[in-house]
Amino acid sequence: MSINALIERRNNALGTGAQLFYEQPLHLVRGDGVHLYDVDGKRYTDMYNNVPCVGHGNKVVAEAMARQQGTLNVHSRYLHEGIIEYAERLAALHPANIESVVFSCSGTEANEVALRMARITTGKRGIICTNGTYHGNSETVGAMTRIGQNGNDGPDLRAIPFPEMYRPLISGASEADLRDAYLNELARTIASLEGGSGGFAGLIICSIFANEGLPNVPQGYMAKAVEMVHAAGGVVISDEVQAGYCRTGHWWGYEVTDFVPDIVVTGKPMGNGLPLSATAASRDLVNKFRADVRYFNTFASSPLQAAVGMAVLDEIEGRQLQANSARIGSDMKQALLARQSDHACIGDIRGEGLFIGLEIIKPGSDKSPDKSCAVDICNVLKDYGFLTSNAGLLSNVVKIRPPLVFTDTDAADFLVAFDTTMAKLNAG
Amino acid sequence: MSINALIERRNNALGTGAQLFYEQPLHLVRGDGVHLYDVDGKRYTDMYNNVPCVGHGNKVVAEAMARQQGTLNVHSRYLHEGIIEYAERLAALHPANIESVVFSCSGTEANEVALRMARITTGKRGIICTNGTYHGNSETVGAMTRIGQNGNDGPDLRAIPFPEMYRPLISGASEADLRDAYLNELARTIASLEGGSGGFAGLIICSIFANEGLPNVPQGYMAKAVEMVHAAGGVVISDEVQAGYCRTGHWWGYEVTDFVPDIVVTGKPMGNGLPLSATAASRDLVNKFRADVRYFNTFASSPLQAAVGMAVLDEIEGRQLQANSARIGSDMKQALLARQSDHACIGDIRGEGLFIGLEIIKPGSDKSPDKSCAVDICNVLKDYGFLTSNAGLLSNVVKIRPPLVFTDTDAADFLVAFDTTMAKLNAG
Repeated sequence: MSINALIERRNNALGTGAQLFYEQPLHLVRGDGVHLYDVDGKRYTDMYNNVPCVGHGNKVVAEAMARQQGTLNVHSRYLHEGIIEYAERLAALHPANIESVVFSCSGTEANEVALRMARITTGKRGIICTNGTYHGNSETVGAMTRIGQNGNDGPDLRAIPFPEMYRPLISGASEADLRDAYLNELARTIASLEGGSGGFAGLIICSIFANEGLPNVPQGYMAKAVEMVHAAGGVVISDEVQAGYCRTGHWWGYEVTDFVPDIVVTGKPMGNGLPLSATAASRDLVNKFRADVRYFNTFASSPLQAAVGMAVLDEIEGRQLQANSARIGSDMKQALLARQSDHACIGDIRGEGLFIGLEIIKPGSDKSPDKSCAVDICNVLKDYGFLTSNAGLLSNVVKIRPPLVFTDTDAADFLVAFDTTMAKLNAG
Repeated sequence: MSINALIERRNNALGTGAQLFYEQPLHLVRGDGVHLYDVDGKRYTDMYNNVPCVGHGNKVVAEAMARQQGTLNVHSRYLHEGIIEYAERLAALHPANIESVVFSCSGTEANEVALRMARITTGKRGIICTNGTYHGNSETVGAMTRIGQNGNDGPDLRAIPFPEMYRPLISGASEADLRDAYLNELARTIASLEGGSGGFAGLIICSIFANEGLPNVPQGYMAKAVEMVHAAGGVVISDEVQAGYCRTGHWWGYEVTDFVPDIVVTGKPMGNGLPLSATAASRDLVNKFRADVRYFNTFASSPLQAAVGMAVLDEIEGRQLQANSARIGSDMKQALLARQSDHACIGDIRGEGLFIGLEIIKPGSDKSPDKSCAVDICNVLKDYGFLTSNAGLLSNVVKIRPPLVFTDTDAADFLVAFDTTMAKLNAG
């Protein structure tokens, strides 16, 4: 069946508007480690997918999955040791204030739990997010999607400008002054919510501001933000769905931006593709939530989630993928930085570990974002066998985010393809 | 480790308040077909779980899962034939007006999609549910949980009394008059929403009113309700998460209550334990939803969901589990009806196929519900090796809902245990 015939069939079965990547969509049939293969046998190096963190087709995970599904997979109202052990292992990866875990099936569900925890423990309603974020697709969580700078979606939700150094809120300011300017936005927004009927319950952020475009954040911003939120009686939710699980070379994104959250949300890479997410917090926060909500999630906290989740942790630990992410990510970022002066369209290179963003601008302009060029780069890279995508608030950031099993050889191959791509596009 | 030590460990890891079934919770380690085994090797016959519809430990499903996870499991922005074929197979199980599918990971997520579809296509906000329902645990969907008779949760959500014959809205009325009385409640509520700022978008119901307690519904209620909803410009959402997938001996619960919905929501049994759910509707409704929301769900519409979902369909079809559910369920219901006169505490016996409810009342009373006795029955049945639970709006309905692979032998064994249980409790 031709690609176009398959797309037509897909439009009928799933509805039109179910997004496909690339001008010529990929028809994939197999994966192995960081590599994906299309229906014609062409190999692609995956530089995009964070879900299959321990590799496409990982046999350790697939075997753990089959073993548990073939043995026992039931809901959580029976005792099962697996999910308890898994929760203990997850909590142990965080500072001492993170003690207990509520499991769910998607980042959306886990963020729903986090928002309700914040609202229950404070008795307040108001939530602050950033103006370039994405935390999920339910009505409540989806309302936070790009609600716009100083956006205001009803009495209980406000957006603040995300902190960044590249297009700063105040041009020419020192880093400290810029930090304070962003913090003033937070203070003003907390006060505004506190002055309303719902009050202020908490701040939710992706700890590395991934959807915003992986900005460099003014030093000390998050630590001060946490202080301000706590002083106002609120809680801080760190959405680690993209930032966590060694993506940055650290276990958690909050280590990069240097703060301790009250609630941690995890998702995407936890099950290497099995729907699995979690909201972790202090015992007190979790107990208050459970007392109020009597939360039950049919598919969550299952023996299957536990077995697969622990297989992923075993792989990350056993194959030292945190160190791999830190070292290879750093080397690749250095190699890209060394190329920046050759390409005026690369306005900035940001990120940590195996999560790198290339800010694409119009050459010669004053940081004018060039989404079109970013899209072109992704399409040409794909033709050369390397899968990336464009992201960020202005959709002009080339996102490089391979599975954690990415190797030095993969990085070297990518850099060759990147050079060829830029030459072909005559970019910058 | 003792049960109590494990519970203590669980309370720390998952928080207190994560519900466990039974006075003495079960510590399960293995499942096989309709049977579950605890840590001491004791065997239980599962009369409760609808998720493992094709059997605990089903090897066909486990192998499909491992094969796909070991081959390819990626998000849906690449083309993959599996999910298209699966959507086609699902749509073909419904009437012609159900054409396209939006996949997600839980019943909650699928109901979120359904509500948004209803609101987008109508341009209105108001949703009507029943006063004894449960559709999921997000903020928006969870607001429908038991909002109370004639409940009112903000301008956009109202509850109507669920239709039933056992404790009717009007005592002594004919079935036709009772039907009209319930329909009048619907008409009044539609008018009330239409008079408000949000208008009326749709009606959402579980097609067999499972959480309400599996009531017998006045003949023709749902067909008329659908007419009224359509006449008011709204859509009808049938939540088939519990009612569907041959549970009633029919493929769908809406065949039992005899209507054609606009939107169908499915979940629990679809993946035999893999998180998998779907919202199916006409191409027009799905396309409008996708155009408005640009819905993406990381773990949904994946090759894994497709492979596992189709393995479950293959098992249901290949093992003729619809006929099995119809025949054995009918026989078991007859056998229970034959015992009703021996037990004055059994006020009513309801349900279809392998979903039977025993309404437990105080003997000699005028249908006074006896939750305590229902709980006792479940605990004693569990001691005898049969797993049930209590449910319904008044929590006094013993819920019998085994995996679809339930056999005549299992049913015969259960009836012996049931007789022994009732004798031991001296019930009625």
